[in-house]
Amino acid sequence: MQIEVYSTFNSVKDLSGKTAIVIDVLRATSVITTALSNGAERVIPVSSVDEALNLSRKFEGQVLLGGEREAVKIPGFDLGNSPLEYKNELVAGKTVIITTSNGTRAIKASESAEHVLIGCFLNASAVVEKALRFALSSETSCVALVCAGTLGEFSLDDAACAGLIVDSLVRNMERVNEIPELSDLAFACHELYLGHRSDLKTFISHAGHYKRLLDLGFEKDIDYCLQRDVLDCVPVYQKGCIQSAISEVLK
Amino acid sequence: MQIEVYSTFNSVKDLSGKTAIVIDVLRATSVITTALSNGAERVIPVSSVDEALNLSRKFEGQVLLGGEREAVKIPGFDLGNSPLEYKNELVAGKTVIITTSNGTRAIKASESAEHVLIGCFLNASAVVEKALRFALSSETSCVALVCAGTLGEFSLDDAACAGLIVDSLVRNMERVNEIPELSDLAFACHELYLGHRSDLKTFISHAGHYKRLLDLGFEKDIDYCLQRDVLDCVPVYQKGCIQSAISEVLK
Repeated sequence: MQIEVYSTFNSVKDLSGKTAIVIDVLRATSVITTALSNGAERVIPVSSVDEALNLSRKFEGQVLLGGEREAVKIPGFDLGNSPLEYKNELVAGKTVIITTSNGTRAIKASESAEHVLIGCFLNASAVVEKALRFALSSETSCVALVCAGTLGEFSLDDAACAGLIVDSLVRNMERVNEIPELSDLAFACHELYLGHRSDLKTFISHAGHYKRLLDLGFEKDIDYCLQRDVLDCVPVYQKGCIQSAISEVLK
Repeated sequence: MQIEVYSTFNSVKDLSGKTAIVIDVLRATSVITTALSNGAERVIPVSSVDEALNLSRKFEGQVLLGGEREAVKIPGFDLGNSPLEYKNELVAGKTVIITTSNGTRAIKASESAEHVLIGCFLNASAVVEKALRFALSSETSCVALVCAGTLGEFSLDDAACAGLIVDSLVRNMERVNEIPELSDLAFACHELYLGHRSDLKTFISHAGHYKRLLDLGFEKDIDYCLQRDVLDCVPVYQKGCIQSAISEVLK
């Protein structure tokens, strides 16, 4: 098996035949995983505010608009980009249309992959299990971790999560006596994770994006997003729409 | 002072006002530094084989053509991309026109910077000293490390050298009681360097590009390029041409 990491949405290459895991820890993929885990019917990621508004007019009452620009809620939208907003009583049974600066672009950039999963710290083990199942049953046998990054640049929070997922993939493969082949960036993220796994929050606190979120008062979001394996929901992106693998796609 | 790292020639942004250090350890910036250290008059980096051939016709006898495609010497060229070929008796007093897959593109991608220096393990301390002098006397006070990468992807050899250079810049600034601000990727490269500085060769041996060079029989090149601080030559790129800072640009 091969494991690749891309550091930004704009560095992604052709992923044909590969299983992609899109990672935007702070906060898009944490939001999407939380929304679906809390009962949202589906999440539709779109690139622009206009696209979100136009699409929302096609639904009648059962749709919520979520997302951010420059980390804050978009005027007129129902929800921002804080996972803590996406509570069960608000999202259950609803369609959420979401647009964010980096995460939704990373999802779109991964569309050439055979499978596109949504990962974060919250569902790390669950997404690894699903990715292994997909990758090992495909001819390519390659997992591509697509980090959203921040405004086109490498971001430590996503790299740390990629490192954790690489570690988990490697350990799973070692159990069946296979050593996966890591790309240079997959190897680097793994090493960064191994060097800092005892205190990932301190490591991630050096990220520019972490500091910006802190300045904007989003410390509770950060603490929530850095929890590991608290959700078993694996969002799967297919034909423009994200649904939970357990409840919708693979049942 | 700010320190940024770019992981590939195609990820470089506007570097106006900044001091760039271009890094292509295996092997373009090691070749350029070696050629100038061994007495070459100048190195002219060009993007294509055609451009190299056309330019060489304008010189009469005093020019050498060097470079590679897919790591091997270009048919009809005088020299490949092995630093060990660029001996004093061959290059002294000559103009070397060079074209490589990643390094020369990284130099061109850095043209918007106020100063463009050429760095590698061989001249790491010398290039840091020069970069500090340039950066601290400029308004921006930012050093941008531009890694060439390998065919548009992050490369461990360049990241390790960037980490060493970040470490040296940080230590120099700490001596004057300043803590530089690191970009996320600068922080990551620094951490990777700190975690592996006792055995950088083993760390770099995980690079895909390292393995390819080994397969092609270039082990002596690798051993040469991973030597630290054996040259005090600092190549400076200006108006399409690279010359040694000591002998030509700053004398």
